[in-house]
Amino acid sequence: MLNSLNKMQKALIALLCGLLLFFGFVILRTGVSRPASTVKLGKVAAGEYDPAVWGQYYPLQYASFQKNSEMAPSPGGFGGSLKTQNSERQPEILANFKGMPFSIDYTEDRGHVFTLEDLKETKRVNDKSPGACISCKTPYIEKLFQEKGWSYGKVPLRELLAQTPEHGYISCANCHDPATMDLRVIQPAFIEAQQRRGIDVTKATREEMRTYVCAQCHVEYHFEPGTSRVVFPWDKGLKPEQMYEMYATKPGGFAQDWQHPDSKAAMLKVQHPEFETWATGVHGQAGVSCADCHMPYMRQDGQKYTSHWMTSPLKHLDASCGTCHTQGAAWLEERVKTIQNHTWQLQHSAGLVVSKAHEAIKKAAAVPNVDQAELAQARELVRKAQWYWDFVAAENGMGFHNPDQALHTCGQAIDLGYKAIESANKAAGIELF
Amino acid sequence: MLNSLNKMQKALIALLCGLLLFFGFVILRTGVSRPASTVKLGKVAAGEYDPAVWGQYYPLQYASFQKNSEMAPSPGGFGGSLKTQNSERQPEILANFKGMPFSIDYTEDRGHVFTLEDLKETKRVNDKSPGACISCKTPYIEKLFQEKGWSYGKVPLRELLAQTPEHGYISCANCHDPATMDLRVIQPAFIEAQQRRGIDVTKATREEMRTYVCAQCHVEYHFEPGTSRVVFPWDKGLKPEQMYEMYATKPGGFAQDWQHPDSKAAMLKVQHPEFETWATGVHGQAGVSCADCHMPYMRQDGQKYTSHWMTSPLKHLDASCGTCHTQGAAWLEERVKTIQNHTWQLQHSAGLVVSKAHEAIKKAAAVPNVDQAELAQARELVRKAQWYWDFVAAENGMGFHNPDQALHTCGQAIDLGYKAIESANKAAGIELF
Repeated sequence: MLNSLNKMQKALIALLCGLLLFFGFVILRTGVSRPASTVKLGKVAAGEYDPAVWGQYYPLQYASFQKNSEMAPSPGGFGGSLKTQNSERQPEILANFKGMPFSIDYTEDRGHVFTLEDLKETKRVNDKSPGACISCKTPYIEKLFQEKGWSYGKVPLRELLAQTPEHGYISCANCHDPATMDLRVIQPAFIEAQQRRGIDVTKATREEMRTYVCAQCHVEYHFEPGTSRVVFPWDKGLKPEQMYEMYATKPGGFAQDWQHPDSKAAMLKVQHPEFETWATGVHGQAGVSCADCHMPYMRQDGQKYTSHWMTSPLKHLDASCGTCHTQGAAWLEERVKTIQNHTWQLQHSAGLVVSKAHEAIKKAAAVPNVDQAELAQARELVRKAQWYWDFVAAENGMGFHNPDQALHTCGQAIDLGYKAIESANKAAGIELF
Repeated sequence: MLNSLNKMQKALIALLCGLLLFFGFVILRTGVSRPASTVKLGKVAAGEYDPAVWGQYYPLQYASFQKNSEMAPSPGGFGGSLKTQNSERQPEILANFKGMPFSIDYTEDRGHVFTLEDLKETKRVNDKSPGACISCKTPYIEKLFQEKGWSYGKVPLRELLAQTPEHGYISCANCHDPATMDLRVIQPAFIEAQQRRGIDVTKATREEMRTYVCAQCHVEYHFEPGTSRVVFPWDKGLKPEQMYEMYATKPGGFAQDWQHPDSKAAMLKVQHPEFETWATGVHGQAGVSCADCHMPYMRQDGQKYTSHWMTSPLKHLDASCGTCHTQGAAWLEERVKTIQNHTWQLQHSAGLVVSKAHEAIKKAAAVPNVDQAELAQARELVRKAQWYWDFVAAENGMGFHNPDQALHTCGQAIDLGYKAIESANKAAGIELF
């Protein structure tokens, strides 16, 4: 066909082809369109927990999942997957959690494959620990809840641990339906808490599910007194103030985790409110899911897959952050570190003030004719101060999931901690300048 | 030429043309390339300050500049261009600046066209006020410095005000060379401070100049004792800690703005460190200039121009933020308000604690046999606490220019303020629980 063209015609076609190539290249570079990858289904039986079985069909995902057994410090200097005691860097932990298990043993979290092992080994667990503790440690929770409903919560933990199948740690089955590979949530407490917020999780989009699978567990919760039913305190909202308010006002509800032996304040232990912290922060509000950063899309041999190494995005900044932020890994790392260092400094200051407040209240309470009403006020103040401190201290992100909220929360903790000290002195009749 | 083609050949060309059109359209939509606008030069004489004269040649810029005379509250609830006393919302201002002019008169800033009017009217100025005060109020500073060098700083302000030409408020000539329309800086203190940092402002890029023209004035500064030379304290860096360190350690240098009459502490007044705050924040680090947000590009009748209404980006979120952030004006406004409300709450708490510290130190000092060393420690603590509080309180941005730094700074102010109170009590022999 081309042979019959004259010189001008050939030149025209060459020019058009050249322009086409150029624009095509520009579009490819700027990433206007890329084909979506498709998932082929394997044959995985319901109740199969061994990731190696799932991994036969999904070798790239499985290979990345195996990295969850790596133990290393975090590149950012906070968190990491080494089983070190948090109290080494924050001795205030020993004072603030005095009288409850977190003062005995409070290690950094290791990877998901260690959930059962770490639960068996932690000194926080004893023969009286309730079965509710197993909720977020295994996909076996699905079967347990199907069989026993919420009554599993009161079965002794060690009884449930003994009957949990091998390979029962957090893995594929926690987040995927084995028949369809669709993302799914199996934690009844999460499903119920979302229902109370008016959210039907079965109608979630895939992007929402890329957060919900993590939000099943990475949250604040408590065990309902009497039943050991797991409850997420989200009825008034997801902010630290709103959750505190729910604990403070819920009729017949949850009032304390333990009484502090020094201050005698009715204390609350914050768990790990990553989901709540993220939800009201800039990434959450922008619809960036947990998986977008912690399980980014990777490519190997031309195949696109989701990394199943649930880890710090600092380990693969380009894949995690680079999708949206084009400033380069070194620049991004600097931003993360600045925010985390700012948060760490205020968090640590807050923890120290809270420790002092417990001590001041103890001393004030020993004074004859102490003003009981003022003492009660001091106890309420230290309870609240510690809640705010712990909300940031216990959260795995050192402020990055919601910088301005985290720093604001620490600032409130410092202010309330000092107010508790002031109130304790006042109760003892010491008028401060 | 086309007539000699067969059907297949014509189809091929049509297909190529279609693809070309499609890709061209995609590229146009995604904004890969846009022609830069060109500036035609007017005939403006050196020393011409009247914006109306400049405006003959630049009517769109001039029309937007005239909006600087609008007086309205800020849409975000902080700042605004109404001449209200800041102490109405923050009574702690009266206590913390006791004994110095900012406790007498501390209004919100109005637009650039009011700089001379407001300088003449403010009760902070009296017959002894030094000429250095005029530095950032007029383009006439260029001529003054050419004629007198730094000696203008000691001429009585009111003498300089009387000789300042009509229309001598901040306008075109502060930032533009009248002959070339190039951006320029004329503040000697800025040029010198940058030199000491190793930065030659004459080599700045245009994008850097879109910040530098603002940074000439929107900074922390002090008048050198004796000479009234204007100095920006940037030698150790632009962070609040680094500038405090410079004031604390500069040999033979600047030690205090005034002595607080209650605490007798040697105090520093922070001015308006917008440039420094921005520089270490996310927008500054990303190379987003002051003008990008506060003077965004606008279009009228197909013509692109820079808005010369120096105002809150909340008034035109799409033009200011929408260039980079695609979430829409309502979403963006919500983020700004969240950050500013968080900052306001901690800033206000910090200011109140600082007030209490001044009072506590005053009371402690009146106690017989007070521990003088401990009292000196209390004074150093309140000086530092107030510096941190004021760094955020005086800055026009309510934390938005650098959220995590601003909140961290407020948190430090709260902590240091309470430590000052503790130290004052200790000095007076009161042992706190």
